Amino acid sequence: MKVNKKDYSTIWVEKNKVKIIDQTKLPFKFVIKELSSLKSFFNAIKKMEVRGAPLIGVTAAFGLALEVYRNPNKSNILKSYRTLCNSRPTAINLKWALDEIIKVILKMPPEQRGLESMKIANKIRNDDINSCKQIGKYGLEVIKKIYKKKKKCVNILTHCNAGWLATVDWGTALAPIFYAKKKKIPIHIWVDETRPRNQGALLTSWELKNENISHTVIVDNAGGHLMQNKQIDMCLVGSDRTTISGNVCNKIGTYLKAVVAYENKIPFFVALPTSTIDKKIKKISDIPIELRDGDELSKVNLKIKNKFISMNVYAKDTPTLNPAFDVTPKKFITKLITEKGICDPKQELIKKLLGN
Amino acid sequence: MKVNKKDYSTIWVEKNKVKIIDQTKLPFKFVIKELSSLKSFFNAIKKMEVRGAPLIGVTAAFGLALEVYRNPNKSNILKSYRTLCNSRPTAINLKWALDEIIKVILKMPPEQRGLESMKIANKIRNDDINSCKQIGKYGLEVIKKIYKKKKKCVNILTHCNAGWLATVDWGTALAPIFYAKKKKIPIHIWVDETRPRNQGALLTSWELKNENISHTVIVDNAGGHLMQNKQIDMCLVGSDRTTISGNVCNKIGTYLKAVVAYENKIPFFVALPTSTIDKKIKKISDIPIELRDGDELSKVNLKIKNKFISMNVYAKDTPTLNPAFDVTPKKFITKLITEKGICDPKQELIKKLLGN
Repeated sequence: MKVNKKDYSTIWVEKNKVKIIDQTKLPFKFVIKELSSLKSFFNAIKKMEVRGAPLIGVTAAFGLALEVYRNPNKSNILKSYRTLCNSRPTAINLKWALDEIIKVILKMPPEQRGLESMKIANKIRNDDINSCKQIGKYGLEVIKKIYKKKKKCVNILTHCNAGWLATVDWGTALAPIFYAKKKKIPIHIWVDETRPRNQGALLTSWELKNENISHTVIVDNAGGHLMQNKQIDMCLVGSDRTTISGNVCNKIGTYLKAVVAYENKIPFFVALPTSTIDKKIKKISDIPIELRDGDELSKVNLKIKNKFISMNVYAKDTPTLNPAFDVTPKKFITKLITEKGICDPKQELIKKLLGN
Repeated sequence: MKVNKKDYSTIWVEKNKVKIIDQTKLPFKFVIKELSSLKSFFNAIKKMEVRGAPLIGVTAAFGLALEVYRNPNKSNILKSYRTLCNSRPTAINLKWALDEIIKVILKMPPEQRGLESMKIANKIRNDDINSCKQIGKYGLEVIKKIYKKKKKCVNILTHCNAGWLATVDWGTALAPIFYAKKKKIPIHIWVDETRPRNQGALLTSWELKNENISHTVIVDNAGGHLMQNKQIDMCLVGSDRTTISGNVCNKIGTYLKAVVAYENKIPFFVALPTSTIDKKIKKISDIPIELRDGDELSKVNLKIKNKFISMNVYAKDTPTLNPAFDVTPKKFITKLITEKGICDPKQELIKKLLGN
């Protein structure tokens, strides 16, 4: 998608080097960073220079591929696999992407593993772009339907950033919005600030501005009030992990919005590539919820004279807890929008969609 | 209540001067400020040096009283009344407190008005302290009941600041908590950060720390996750305006928590002095919802080298909307806790409580 009218993706290979956009600096500074060592990939994921379930998966795949290239011994591969797996716990794509590589290369002689890993990582990257485009096309139909009924601007609430910055390109929840804009459907996006890291205010708002899409940032507290006052026609969010039975684990706060949308009879859509579907997990409570550092609440990143400085906004020693995700039970979800089509959040339908 | 082990209230008269604690500097700096002109009272309310519905009412009363003292002409009284009424639109106590003065003094000869106004303002202040104590005692019974059943630490979620800083002393939602602490009931308070102004993280947390009460600050997004995971036994918030039929207008975000508490069968209590009850308003949509400056989202106040500086945390020109309150329909409220007793949010019961 566009950055200052030039097309970018979030991760790409250039002369055998993997490049990313460092998202911790956005929207204040547009920094392209090269990742070369396993540690740099691990840190990029952990420190959220790259974030968003699909992008985490693609980044991990390239990280593993480069490491396999360097040293294709089985013990090194498994060690690197475990390191990357542990960089963040909730997004299932991370493990999925690494498994895609592992299950193929371990059967091969060591000298072929590097090239093959890189091939698979590239395929995962390309598949992600195509998946997001498909999600965009399917989701567009949802927005169109609401527009045909309302015949006025469609107001969409989104939480966190599930835009192209969360994927390789196009995004999940924002892909239908980008398509709607291209199709000239009048839309307005309410963007949840998304504390504690403000991905809505910083990243989603930046994406929408670059694509010239009308939007307004609100605090996470305000969405209920807007729903109650009929200022939201639909909610559209991403997913970090989706259970096979249709429950959605996504950025903390998603659950609050979904319950209140349900109460106000506002449809709540989740856009996701099927790579976020966890076929094994049965109980919601089995999903690991990442607890992140409380400093994410009590400190703020500021750009002062071209330097990024972390400053306290709370009193020192304020006790905090920082769970990064929550789970929205399927009851509150209207439809899942995937690259393979749209379906109700029901196990038999999801299985059918997946073709098994 | 205690500040560094010394007792304070939020507003008091000292040698004929009205003093307040400037809450925009808390918890970083404890500043006592003198208010002398009508303009200084108007600004203190508008800029939220004092905030919280009960305290706004008391402050406005002293502001009017001092101005009546200065110039007791009817035209000046009515002009000052209107000025103070317009300082903030949502809290009904503001108008209520001013009306308490106006309805008495306009019947008097001008030379008696100043002294009488001051008397009434002082009475409103004292009544507020007594009301909050009563709320504390009634609310304590609610906490006790849950403790008796659970026999373990009672986990309470609160939103914004409805502590002693929102009143003259003791607070509304926090009064029962202070009483529970004194009665040695094991409690833990989950404190919503409360964006955009962070009153939970800054003020509620500071109050609880000073009273040595166990608490944890969370982002507003996290409360739903905690409720779903049975980490919250009850919610307890304040009110800026309560309709006679039992709907509660309170800090933005209250509605989201109330709906999700209802969904999770967690009792949701609202603590309020009956002065916040609006006997006239019928429809929820008739309550004026204050729209505050979007800078409250996009900027942050920092204390750097003993100076307070406002810094951008969003990209410049990020479009924002900042509604400061929302309305929670009575359906989602378990009980109202007032200084006159506890009751269901039902018109006939509220009227009975009010004695009319």
